[in-house]
Amino acid sequence: MRVATPDRHAARHSRLREQLRAAGLEAVLVSSAANVAYLTGLFASTSALLVDLNELRVIVDGRYGGAARERAAQIPGLSAVVIPSDGSIEEGVVAEFVTAGYSRAGFDEDALTVRRHQDLIARLAAAGSRATLDPTAGMVERLRAVKDDWELATLRDAASRLSDAAKYIIPKALAGMSEREVAWRIEAELHRVGFDKPAFDTIVAAGPNSAMPHHRAGSRALEPGDLVVLDFGGMLDGYAVDLTRTITLGPPGSRERQLLERVAGAQMAAFDAVAIGRPATVVDDAAREAMVREGLGEAFSHGTGHGLGLEVHERPRVGRRRAGQSDERLAAGMVFTIEPGAYLPGWGGARIEDDVVVTASGAEWLTDVPRLMWATE
Amino acid sequence: MRVATPDRHAARHSRLREQLRAAGLEAVLVSSAANVAYLTGLFASTSALLVDLNELRVIVDGRYGGAARERAAQIPGLSAVVIPSDGSIEEGVVAEFVTAGYSRAGFDEDALTVRRHQDLIARLAAAGSRATLDPTAGMVERLRAVKDDWELATLRDAASRLSDAAKYIIPKALAGMSEREVAWRIEAELHRVGFDKPAFDTIVAAGPNSAMPHHRAGSRALEPGDLVVLDFGGMLDGYAVDLTRTITLGPPGSRERQLLERVAGAQMAAFDAVAIGRPATVVDDAAREAMVREGLGEAFSHGTGHGLGLEVHERPRVGRRRAGQSDERLAAGMVFTIEPGAYLPGWGGARIEDDVVVTASGAEWLTDVPRLMWATE
Repeated sequence: MRVATPDRHAARHSRLREQLRAAGLEAVLVSSAANVAYLTGLFASTSALLVDLNELRVIVDGRYGGAARERAAQIPGLSAVVIPSDGSIEEGVVAEFVTAGYSRAGFDEDALTVRRHQDLIARLAAAGSRATLDPTAGMVERLRAVKDDWELATLRDAASRLSDAAKYIIPKALAGMSEREVAWRIEAELHRVGFDKPAFDTIVAAGPNSAMPHHRAGSRALEPGDLVVLDFGGMLDGYAVDLTRTITLGPPGSRERQLLERVAGAQMAAFDAVAIGRPATVVDDAAREAMVREGLGEAFSHGTGHGLGLEVHERPRVGRRRAGQSDERLAAGMVFTIEPGAYLPGWGGARIEDDVVVTASGAEWLTDVPRLMWATE
Repeated sequence: MRVATPDRHAARHSRLREQLRAAGLEAVLVSSAANVAYLTGLFASTSALLVDLNELRVIVDGRYGGAARERAAQIPGLSAVVIPSDGSIEEGVVAEFVTAGYSRAGFDEDALTVRRHQDLIARLAAAGSRATLDPTAGMVERLRAVKDDWELATLRDAASRLSDAAKYIIPKALAGMSEREVAWRIEAELHRVGFDKPAFDTIVAAGPNSAMPHHRAGSRALEPGDLVVLDFGGMLDGYAVDLTRTITLGPPGSRERQLLERVAGAQMAAFDAVAIGRPATVVDDAAREAMVREGLGEAFSHGTGHGLGLEVHERPRVGRRRAGQSDERLAAGMVFTIEPGAYLPGWGGARIEDDVVVTASGAEWLTDVPRLMWATE
């Protein structure tokens, strides 16, 4: 697995420390695995990371000791703390916290459970610390929303492989195959083009199932006349890409073609709305207005997209405007999906999804696959 | 996907309600996806379930509305609440909570994040509720630790398929193949025998990598003389099974054979220690004592096993005795792994893992695969 170079990590640390200074904090406790990976290059299911204005300390159990020490040797300022086999991550965090003598630190209220948070507070008190813990969720996620050049190169490579996989495998979905069998063939193709694993459970939704945006892949056999939604993605070096095409078995009928063209039109309208400095919600507005114009407003029952990176759903949020929610602004280097869909219960549905990066001139497609495809074999 | 029959669900609800009554609670808020699946048969990434002494209310977003209503039609006492597209699960929970007029309910402090818990409390207060929320983590997990007959049949079926996959694919690991390629062949075989997906990222650790219990599968090519740890599992109808074999390319040398026989001996000692009513930690004690007798005490750096079910790691905990922790007792119908291992840094390691169920006469193997295997092709 390739990881970003030490200078990229140093730049990430600098930006996080700017936020610490602005918030008047001495340190922040990073608890989510994706955030720890972003700041250290260490992928560990159980870990915590304390970041202060000078140093970073990653706390892991024995299983990740070797990997954590390897990362510490690479990243300036990072040290690795391995807890004993009968200890807990919270114990390790508190020991480091007390040694460093922090009096005010941030924690991630979206990542810590009630139990771990209470455990932390009780242990700090027992250790004689009078530190206050402020909720600072989103601090690292805000940085992650804008990709650096290494991340963009990784995502471009991944999107190119995903496009190759799609162009090769989609025409081979055959009448008579079950949804599950098609999903398996897609996952085998993801492996062949070099992905480490699927980014999520592959969706194959045929016929009436295509009208359910959250259908997975079941026993239904593909039938002539079906619309078939294929939604799949891969993880490459820790980064996720995601693509959806809705196909027919043989060339589409006129009603199916019309639906697909309308959804593709909404996708293009959303793409055209992307510009640095605009609220991310304008992307959803544009897709939704296009769908409403075509009489498909009710049928478009989900948001237009989601950020991609170390997680398959991350910032920016590319959804509907919500009352009381501050608008996240689009910035160069943001990567997200654009995936409008229309679902007509009992008949069928269609979704078309591609990945884009925000650039100086608007948006640029990362995936490159024909939007109107059908099985040919 | 097959799910348990309504009468099994009713029996689960009765046992949960006994605990509610004993704790003096009117209701409990169930927040983890596996617990919701156990009590309703609904598998949804975002959901909540309110269980009181008479009714169950599952709260989902629009994506799971259809599936939730289908389950509600099957399960007596269950109703489905679908939140509006601009609402949150917490909003839905609070509305139901206030309508039902609960004054004292439980919540899961291991599943709720600090933010969701605070949101819940604030919304309850805003709605004029004076209800108290007591931490009740583990209430559903304790029930899940003992499998009912439907679950046991599912786990037996899954373990039998996993054994078939292991016997077929393990002899085909070849010198020159990369760890990653072997992992892929194992996952393809899991698909062929009928699993819905791998239960976790398949581990293939060859040569020096076999000394790292948490190594995944990388670019190292398998070499003659290597010990190769193969650890894999599958999900069938929502249930996980898990198996490990450590193999050589061709018959093992004497040092490798000796290590494998000692680890297999420790596994058998652990198996023999299983008996209804004994603390689960006796299983670890037995494996550890056997390893210590063979001079491998230091080399056995992890716990002996873990419960299997809707999650790949669940109760019972089959690990070391811990000071201050009450001992969970073994009961008929508990299903767990027995997987001692010995890791000798720089040289190699071995782990042997099988799945068992606790019965009146001790333990019974669910997996059935020779313990000493090697690649033959």
